[in-house]
Amino acid sequence: MPRLLRVGAAQIGPIYRDDTRGEVVERLIALMEEAERKGVELVCYPECALSTFFPRYLLERSEAERYFEESMPNPSVQPLFDQARELGVGFHLGYSELDGGNHYNSSILVDKEGRIIGKYRKSHIPGTSEPIPGQRFQHLERRYFLEGDTGFSVWDAFGGKIGMAICNDRRWPETWRVLGMQGVELVIVGWNTPLTHYRKGISYSRLTEFHSKLSLQAGCYQNGTWAVGVAHCGEEEPDYVLMGQSMIVSPLGEVVALSTTLRDELISSTIDLDAGKEIKEGVFNFELYRRPELYKIISEPTGTNPSKG
Amino acid sequence: MPRLLRVGAAQIGPIYRDDTRGEVVERLIALMEEAERKGVELVCYPECALSTFFPRYLLERSEAERYFEESMPNPSVQPLFDQARELGVGFHLGYSELDGGNHYNSSILVDKEGRIIGKYRKSHIPGTSEPIPGQRFQHLERRYFLEGDTGFSVWDAFGGKIGMAICNDRRWPETWRVLGMQGVELVIVGWNTPLTHYRKGISYSRLTEFHSKLSLQAGCYQNGTWAVGVAHCGEEEPDYVLMGQSMIVSPLGEVVALSTTLRDELISSTIDLDAGKEIKEGVFNFELYRRPELYKIISEPTGTNPSKG
Repeated sequence: MPRLLRVGAAQIGPIYRDDTRGEVVERLIALMEEAERKGVELVCYPECALSTFFPRYLLERSEAERYFEESMPNPSVQPLFDQARELGVGFHLGYSELDGGNHYNSSILVDKEGRIIGKYRKSHIPGTSEPIPGQRFQHLERRYFLEGDTGFSVWDAFGGKIGMAICNDRRWPETWRVLGMQGVELVIVGWNTPLTHYRKGISYSRLTEFHSKLSLQAGCYQNGTWAVGVAHCGEEEPDYVLMGQSMIVSPLGEVVALSTTLRDELISSTIDLDAGKEIKEGVFNFELYRRPELYKIISEPTGTNPSKG
Repeated sequence: MPRLLRVGAAQIGPIYRDDTRGEVVERLIALMEEAERKGVELVCYPECALSTFFPRYLLERSEAERYFEESMPNPSVQPLFDQARELGVGFHLGYSELDGGNHYNSSILVDKEGRIIGKYRKSHIPGTSEPIPGQRFQHLERRYFLEGDTGFSVWDAFGGKIGMAICNDRRWPETWRVLGMQGVELVIVGWNTPLTHYRKGISYSRLTEFHSKLSLQAGCYQNGTWAVGVAHCGEEEPDYVLMGQSMIVSPLGEVVALSTTLRDELISSTIDLDAGKEIKEGVFNFELYRRPELYKIISEPTGTNPSKG
């Protein structure tokens, strides 16, 4: 008996600098309604889904503050929660969180009754805290967000074991393994990934989509888990393009659904949460095959760092 | 100034059950000579390159013993070492090692003077120790080999930082990360991977080549390292086929050379050992971005194991 769950990746196209929260939430609701018509039980929105991806700007803190949510839900976002309960659809939402003066890049898991049942704060914050001179666009995530303090958890929800990761987290095999060690069956990961890389002269910019896909496929295969990867994407202003390529990836590492636009777009799949069992009990039977005594360096605050010389 | 090294993957086709060590060593030498003519400085032979891949059989220990090397070099293999010194070519060789009653699946790194400068013993031993009833071919690596006791090291050699891994090790991100934390620039990994999977009914047998490639590409990208992946391959007896697809993979995760046969075949590339620097100092700057305090579970002998119930 397969354990079936119908999941959707609700990709969000450009959100412009002065778009209101209300305008964005309307778009999210439209995607949720489409998802519901397609039988989706869990709809996944991307990282920082409520505003433009502001870390490309150097802003005064007071100016940046308007992109953060001081409570969740709040009056602007409440209609999304209401509609979820109305339709009986659960959701995942990434947003910029302000919690008593601390800023995080966060995501929540919301059940079909519109209740928040899980929260995650992004662990691997990329980019810089100071602007790089001479660049038109920055990637100042380390200025605006603290490193998350939640670690990686797995929730029993939607009939399975669900984990969350955010954007750059997906590139780190540690993310997937820490979730995998907890038996995760579905990892939800949203992103904002500049297609034209924020650091000029990086030779691998052309490989941005390949590296994103590679990270998801490897993470899924090596832990026998599904992933829903979902983008906040498109040209948010001239010459600043965020990649799309939202995808649903199987526990064998195969892409089973893929977005094709840089606009609001829903993709969905019916997934069998048991599909990773053969991997988990076979080639990646952790208890049988892992050699944790050889992995010590991974959890030690040490290691070669070429940039420290 | 790039740090160039010309490397070769010397893929070995079928070795039959009764082929002598001398016959195999002749083939290895022919590949080394071809490599030398192509300017290769380091030629990489696969896992268990000196005999047929015997773990498919259930053998008496005394019968299996003939596939192991009690010393390295030994009189049968000495000609390979002699030729290496003669040609000024270094090499990597995988073989079945018997060391004072202990059996390992091992590999060595040999310099251009024919001196052994590094030894590694396979950490992640796949398969079973007892035969699975009803199967024509087994995968009894856990019967014939102990889990390696060396851990993962990196050697300063051939102008760079070189690590070794063996076959199933390549699927585990821990392998790559432990090497990556030591600043590895080139990982050499040989394999014997049944294309028709040894366990009947495994649904992902058709993905064997994809999973091998995925593991190499992810490991390289996520650690900014080159890899030479090299197969012992082909139909060693009717219905038992080992996959080939030897490949050289860049620190960006791109395949830059690929074998096309299931026979003895040399592929080679000139690689820039500095090519991973941009990755190591950028997206995977370990010291800046890693969160080792969140990775504890990875080096603990714990975790969910579905097969233990």
